[in-house]
Amino acid sequence: MDRNVSAARIQKDMESFERFTSTPGQGITRLPFTGVVRDCVNHLTKLMEEAGLSVREDAAGNVYGRMNGSEKSAPALVIASHFDSVKFGGNFDGLCGIIAGIEVVRMLRDAGITLKNPIEVMGTHDEEGMRYGTGFFGVKAMMGEVDVDYLHRYKDADGISIYDSMVSYGLDPERIKAAARDYKNEIAAFLEVHIEQGPVLDSTKTNLGLVNCIVGMQRYLITVTGRPDHAGTTPMDMRVDAMECASKVISQVSGFAREAGGKGTVATVGFAQVSPNAMNIIPQEVTFSLDVRSKDQSCIDKIVGDVRGALEQICTEKGATFNVDEKLKVAPAYLNEKLLGMLRESCGKLGFSSLQMPSGAGHDSLQTAPKIDTVMLFVPSKGGRSHCAVEWTEYGDLANAASVVYDALTSNFK
Amino acid sequence: MDRNVSAARIQKDMESFERFTSTPGQGITRLPFTGVVRDCVNHLTKLMEEAGLSVREDAAGNVYGRMNGSEKSAPALVIASHFDSVKFGGNFDGLCGIIAGIEVVRMLRDAGITLKNPIEVMGTHDEEGMRYGTGFFGVKAMMGEVDVDYLHRYKDADGISIYDSMVSYGLDPERIKAAARDYKNEIAAFLEVHIEQGPVLDSTKTNLGLVNCIVGMQRYLITVTGRPDHAGTTPMDMRVDAMECASKVISQVSGFAREAGGKGTVATVGFAQVSPNAMNIIPQEVTFSLDVRSKDQSCIDKIVGDVRGALEQICTEKGATFNVDEKLKVAPAYLNEKLLGMLRESCGKLGFSSLQMPSGAGHDSLQTAPKIDTVMLFVPSKGGRSHCAVEWTEYGDLANAASVVYDALTSNFK
Repeated sequence: MDRNVSAARIQKDMESFERFTSTPGQGITRLPFTGVVRDCVNHLTKLMEEAGLSVREDAAGNVYGRMNGSEKSAPALVIASHFDSVKFGGNFDGLCGIIAGIEVVRMLRDAGITLKNPIEVMGTHDEEGMRYGTGFFGVKAMMGEVDVDYLHRYKDADGISIYDSMVSYGLDPERIKAAARDYKNEIAAFLEVHIEQGPVLDSTKTNLGLVNCIVGMQRYLITVTGRPDHAGTTPMDMRVDAMECASKVISQVSGFAREAGGKGTVATVGFAQVSPNAMNIIPQEVTFSLDVRSKDQSCIDKIVGDVRGALEQICTEKGATFNVDEKLKVAPAYLNEKLLGMLRESCGKLGFSSLQMPSGAGHDSLQTAPKIDTVMLFVPSKGGRSHCAVEWTEYGDLANAASVVYDALTSNFK
Repeated sequence: MDRNVSAARIQKDMESFERFTSTPGQGITRLPFTGVVRDCVNHLTKLMEEAGLSVREDAAGNVYGRMNGSEKSAPALVIASHFDSVKFGGNFDGLCGIIAGIEVVRMLRDAGITLKNPIEVMGTHDEEGMRYGTGFFGVKAMMGEVDVDYLHRYKDADGISIYDSMVSYGLDPERIKAAARDYKNEIAAFLEVHIEQGPVLDSTKTNLGLVNCIVGMQRYLITVTGRPDHAGTTPMDMRVDAMECASKVISQVSGFAREAGGKGTVATVGFAQVSPNAMNIIPQEVTFSLDVRSKDQSCIDKIVGDVRGALEQICTEKGATFNVDEKLKVAPAYLNEKLLGMLRESCGKLGFSSLQMPSGAGHDSLQTAPKIDTVMLFVPSKGGRSHCAVEWTEYGDLANAASVVYDALTSNFK
């Protein structure tokens, strides 16, 4: 195994995908079921075939490249990640996990090794959920959780449903259930190599992240309502200022998250909107988002409780009212300890520093983990940046990830 | 003097102006130098003439209705307010002060009284500054502070300058300087009756407000800049969260104003904008307004200093930066003590409760006070509401104001 050869092959593959974007010069935009993704998938198919894989597209638009194992009936080791991207994103988020999987296959071929189990390198379709406001589409379909109703229900900004987009993409949406697999019998493990999308590995100069958990997430839109009055003529003690109340809550959110502690515990107010939003009018309404994540459900509950408590206290004191609208609620997903142990052992054997860490972002693995033995391996993101054009990961780091997966598979599934 | 007769005449006059709006059914919109204002001014001229005044329009579009005094060369007592309005405003803000002036004239005629000094009821043009982003236009022109350059400089949202609007309104903008008056010799007093636009008189059931000061005002746009990162993957101790910093400052603003104390001291954050403003991205930038007003310049300075201090401390601590952009800076204007004393005495004599108070909003009197003996009389605003369609003042309260002015004038200038 020559790490430089791997890095060069990965670089060549990765760069060959840079042209598949609907926003050239403004990062990578590969929205699901578009012409750009069709071109991308055709190219991916070619790469997989060159690596000796037999390729098929399923009814949901996922792409599988299969290398048979020595035991005909053994369940597959799926190395998966997504080929779609956010708008104006980078070339690494998603794609690099597929390319790492192809590289593992090439390494096996180079070494003349056939595992007991088949390997399936899987490119998943529409993990990001950017076009229809959903997410994890391909993997959900693979797990039998998508039906025709679902395809009609979700539409993009132009009102085009998933159903109609699939038709123009060249798929038969009526066959969506054919994408569902008997994963209990067909899949032995689900491995996902992904960029960290955070600053931890890069800033601590750690080679790889062993993801033991994908954080749970709760998301709310909170509206504080006061009374709009003239900013010059309304004395301080006669105001019901929605901005005063909201800011007194928002300013405590970071502190609540720090106090709650726990690995991967974060709370963010990323969005705020003021009404009427005029310099000389006391705000009537401030709406803001609350995004809370943690490995520990109890930390999430604590923070959400603290925010509710602060809202209650401050709004009551000032005569304002508030409304809390739940937008998202996902429990933490714990990854497979046995697979994690294998990857940890391989990291040690190959001399790579590693860190056990939660994933703060959602991934296909979040969907599979409760039902399929799942594990994730993080590679460092330069400066922690992602979902933007400057997103970057060293090709050598991807080669490290491929060699760890290679070692874990050959050590445990030969 | 029959207060009911006055109230009825005022009501009739006020209601006769409700049709002059460019937004029927959505409150009063009388933007300067528009057809609607031309119609409004024609009607005002007719009302003034019916009250026995000799009417002229000056080169700035102000309207004067004059009643001569017994001493030919005596300087005028100007009873002024504006006839323009904000967009979607009410019928009282501005107009009611002109109608109160006309009613004073009618009361004098009814009583067969001629004062020593002439009375000039003045309708001022474009006090609100809504169309060109300016303010106090007519009064500034009267004081010689507007030149042709000024008329070219300021344009409305459609790019039409004051100059061009004046031409289509039927005025010769080249003659603007003809609106300037030798106010030192020509004007003895400038009296303005105006709605309070705040809740103090209404909530304390006080008949009239004796305005001794128009508050000074400072307005800023403050931008706090942090770093945009993924809300899920960036640990709390690796964030530079512009929202956290900004909210920690904003949440203190009301407290700073309360601590600073002083009459009419208020501070408001009415406007805020977040970038990129996405639920799952830590805010890079939060821009917010700061509007500070007080009778006491030292209170304004204290609050602005406190906010700067908080910005400095919080941003330094968190690694964020900030920028403070000054938008407006007006010193407090103190109204004439002698005129104020006359109005106070008349209130007492007529049995009206009164409250000495600052004006938290700007008015034509803010312009005249430094150079002309100026006083303001506030009438209650129902619920403190103004600059909106529900703006309301009782006609009886306007009759009270007229009778106080009538009494003050007949007691002191006969």
